[in-house]
Amino acid sequence: MKDKFLSTDSYKGVRDFYPDDMAIQSYIFDVWSQTAESFGYERYDASVLEPAILYKSKGAENEELVNEQTYTFLDRGEREVTLRPEMTPTVARMVAGKRHELVFPLRWYSIPNLFRYERAQRGRLREHWQLNCDLFGADDVSADIEILALAHQMLINFGATEDMFEIKVNNRAEMTKLYSELGINDEELVNKITKLNDQKAKISKADYTESMEKILKDRKLTLAVIKMVEEKVTDHELIKGLATLGINNATIDRSIARGFDYYTGTVFEIFDKSPENNRALLGGGRYDNLTAMFGGNTVTGIGFGMGDVTMRDFLETHDLLTANITSPTIMVIPAETNLNIEAQKIAKQFREADIKVATDMSQKKVGKKISDAGKQFVEFALIFGEDELNSSTFTLKNLTDGTEQSGTLTELINNLTT
Amino acid sequence: MKDKFLSTDSYKGVRDFYPDDMAIQSYIFDVWSQTAESFGYERYDASVLEPAILYKSKGAENEELVNEQTYTFLDRGEREVTLRPEMTPTVARMVAGKRHELVFPLRWYSIPNLFRYERAQRGRLREHWQLNCDLFGADDVSADIEILALAHQMLINFGATEDMFEIKVNNRAEMTKLYSELGINDEELVNKITKLNDQKAKISKADYTESMEKILKDRKLTLAVIKMVEEKVTDHELIKGLATLGINNATIDRSIARGFDYYTGTVFEIFDKSPENNRALLGGGRYDNLTAMFGGNTVTGIGFGMGDVTMRDFLETHDLLTANITSPTIMVIPAETNLNIEAQKIAKQFREADIKVATDMSQKKVGKKISDAGKQFVEFALIFGEDELNSSTFTLKNLTDGTEQSGTLTELINNLTT
Repeated sequence: MKDKFLSTDSYKGVRDFYPDDMAIQSYIFDVWSQTAESFGYERYDASVLEPAILYKSKGAENEELVNEQTYTFLDRGEREVTLRPEMTPTVARMVAGKRHELVFPLRWYSIPNLFRYERAQRGRLREHWQLNCDLFGADDVSADIEILALAHQMLINFGATEDMFEIKVNNRAEMTKLYSELGINDEELVNKITKLNDQKAKISKADYTESMEKILKDRKLTLAVIKMVEEKVTDHELIKGLATLGINNATIDRSIARGFDYYTGTVFEIFDKSPENNRALLGGGRYDNLTAMFGGNTVTGIGFGMGDVTMRDFLETHDLLTANITSPTIMVIPAETNLNIEAQKIAKQFREADIKVATDMSQKKVGKKISDAGKQFVEFALIFGEDELNSSTFTLKNLTDGTEQSGTLTELINNLTT
Repeated sequence: MKDKFLSTDSYKGVRDFYPDDMAIQSYIFDVWSQTAESFGYERYDASVLEPAILYKSKGAENEELVNEQTYTFLDRGEREVTLRPEMTPTVARMVAGKRHELVFPLRWYSIPNLFRYERAQRGRLREHWQLNCDLFGADDVSADIEILALAHQMLINFGATEDMFEIKVNNRAEMTKLYSELGINDEELVNKITKLNDQKAKISKADYTESMEKILKDRKLTLAVIKMVEEKVTDHELIKGLATLGINNATIDRSIARGFDYYTGTVFEIFDKSPENNRALLGGGRYDNLTAMFGGNTVTGIGFGMGDVTMRDFLETHDLLTANITSPTIMVIPAETNLNIEAQKIAKQFREADIKVATDMSQKKVGKKISDAGKQFVEFALIFGEDELNSSTFTLKNLTDGTEQSGTLTELINNLTT
C-alpha cells in the first residue's frame, strides 16, 4: 500500500528550506550582501549550468576529477554540461568576456549555489551556497589588505568579536623564496611539502615530522623546513596594514596552503576558535593568471569564498543567530465565514500602511484561529463580527501578552505606525 | 591560434548576470518579496535537483514529456535526477511532508530558477526565474479573491496602473457544468474543446469555428458552444469580490484554460495590454488534489507563477524600470600609491557611518581614476595627498555636477548623512 505513494524526501544530499530555515538563510545572505556593498562590491550571477570544458582545461588529471566529483552530463545536443562546483571559473569567464568594457579595480560579489558529487556522508552536502567576493585589477598590497578587511567585517557584522575567530595568512611567492633559501627549488618537491603542511593541523607532530623526512630524505633539512614553517612572523606588511585598520586577530601561518592551484601570492583562511567547529569558515587568495585560458591580457585578482553551512554553524556555536521569520504582524479573524471578504477589506487598509497582514478564512472556530495565529508568530489578532463592522470600532489583541486596544481602523493603524 | 583558448560564452540558452542586469533582477525579486510578505506569505526554497519520479508519476505520456522537455540524468548511484521545470510538485512535496505540523491556511512564496530543455530559439530560454505564491488549506471564495488581489498588487507595486494589464478569470468546475448544460459530458471531448479555446486568441475566428465544428461534428452545437464561450459574464462572485477591494480590471473569460491538468476550480491569467507584449505575464489557479500522490489527506490550494523575463519586458514596455545599481557612493583616490593604506583608513570611517565606499589603489593617474569612478556611477570622489592628511581637511567632489565641499572627515560625513 505504502509503495503506491511517492516519498516526500528531497533528493539525496540537498536541503529543503522550510520558512524557518529560509529565514536564517535569508538573514545570512542579507548580512553578506550589505557588507559587500558597503565596500563598493557589486552583485553578479550566472546559471548553475556551465560548459564542462570550463573545469577540464587543465589536463587529464583534472578531467578525471571533474568526471568523478562533479555533476556532469551530456545534453541532447551532445554538449557536456556541469553543475558548477565553484564560482571562480565562472567569474573568470565573465570578466574575460568583457575585459575591454569593465572598469578596474573591479569589485564583484555573488552568492551562488554550488554542487559537488560526493558520497553523501554526515555533514557533507552535495549542494551548498557560497559568498564569493573578488577584487580584480589591483595588485597593490592594499588590495590584499582590503579583501582581508572585508572578510573580517563579514564576521563582525554578524556580531562576532575578534576573540571568536582568527585570520591565518600565508603567501605562495614568499614560500617559494623561503624554500629556495633552504636549497629546495624543485617544484614537485615544494608541492609535496605544501600538501603535507596543509595536513599539519590534523596530524600529530611525530607523524608530521616523519612524513616530512620521507619527502625530503634528509634529517637536517627536515628540521630546517619545520623550523621555518613554525616560526612566528610578526614583521609582515599585511599584518601591519591590517593593524592600522584596527584588525588584530591576523597572523602569518606558513602551513596555510589552500587547495586550488591557481593561487599565486597571498593565501588565507579564517578559523572559528571554538573547538567544536574546527573547519575553515572562509578561505581565499591572490591569483594572477585566472583569465589566461580565455586568451588576451590576464587580469590579476584576489578573492575569497565562505559557505552557508559553516557560517550557520559559527553563528549557532557563538549564539549569534537572530531569528527573523517573516510572519504577518496581524491576523484578521472574522467571527463568521460570511465576513471573509470584509476581512480582506480590513487587511487591505493595514497593508496600505505598510503593515504585514493576513486573514484566516478557514472554517475553524475563532479560538482555534487565534491559537494558530500564535503558532505562526503573528503579533496581533483582530477578531471582528457584525457588531464591530456596524460600530466601526475594532479590537486588536496582542498575542504575546494578551493586552487589547480598541479604536477605529485608522486609530489602530496610527497606534501601530507611530 | 584562437582554438587554444576557451570561449567566454555561457552555456546555450542561459544568461550571465553582469551587475547592471543583476541590479534589475534584484529589484524585481525585491518587489516580489516585499509584496508577498505584505500579504503574510513566508518564503521557502528547495534544491533545483529533484527525483525525476516527482514529474513522471502520471503515466507513460507524462514520462515521455519529462524525458524530452526536462534536464533529466542518472547520478552515479543510478538515481534519476531532474532539474526542476516548475515549482508546484516541489511545494506539494514539502507541504505533504510536514502536513501534520504546518498551520493552515498556509501562505508560502518562493523565487526558484526553473529549467526546460527546449530547442534554443529567440526569446525561449532554458533557465528562468519564477515567483510562486500559494495559499494552502482554504477553499473559500475569499481565498481566490486574495490570491488574485495579491497578483494584482504585484503589478501595482511596480508602478503599473490598471489600464496597463487585464486579469482574465475562468473556472474549470463552472466550465464542466456549462458544457453539461449543452449536453457535452464526455471528458475527452471537453479536453479537446478546452485545448482549442486555449488557442482562440492566436487563431482567426473562421479557423476557430471550423476547428470547433470538427471536434463537435454538429453545426448547431458548435454555435452554441462558441456563444457560451464568448458571452460576457458580469454577475460573478469573484469579480464582484475583487471590485469591493477596488480591483476593476478583472473579467470572466471562458476561453482561459491554463495548461496544467492539476487545476480543478478557478484559473486565471494576467495579460499585458500593450500589443508589443502579448504573452501572459502571470497565470495560476486552484488545485484540490496536488498532494494526493504522497498519500494521506489532500491539501487544497490556489496559487500562481510569474516569470522574470516577461516581468522585465512588461516594465520596459511601460517605462517602469527604475535602475538601482549598487555602486559605491564615494571613491577615495590617493594622489600617490604609497598612500593606498591611508585611503583604506579613510574609507573605513565613511563605511562606519553606513556610507558605501571604495578606494582606487591602482597605478592609474588621478584624472583617469576620477573619470573611471564616474563610469562606475560613483557619486563623489575624495582625492587626497600628504597635504590633506597633514591638514586633516579633505575635499569631496560631486562627479555629476562638479561642485566641491571641504572639511574634516567628520564634517563631510555629517553633511552626507544629515
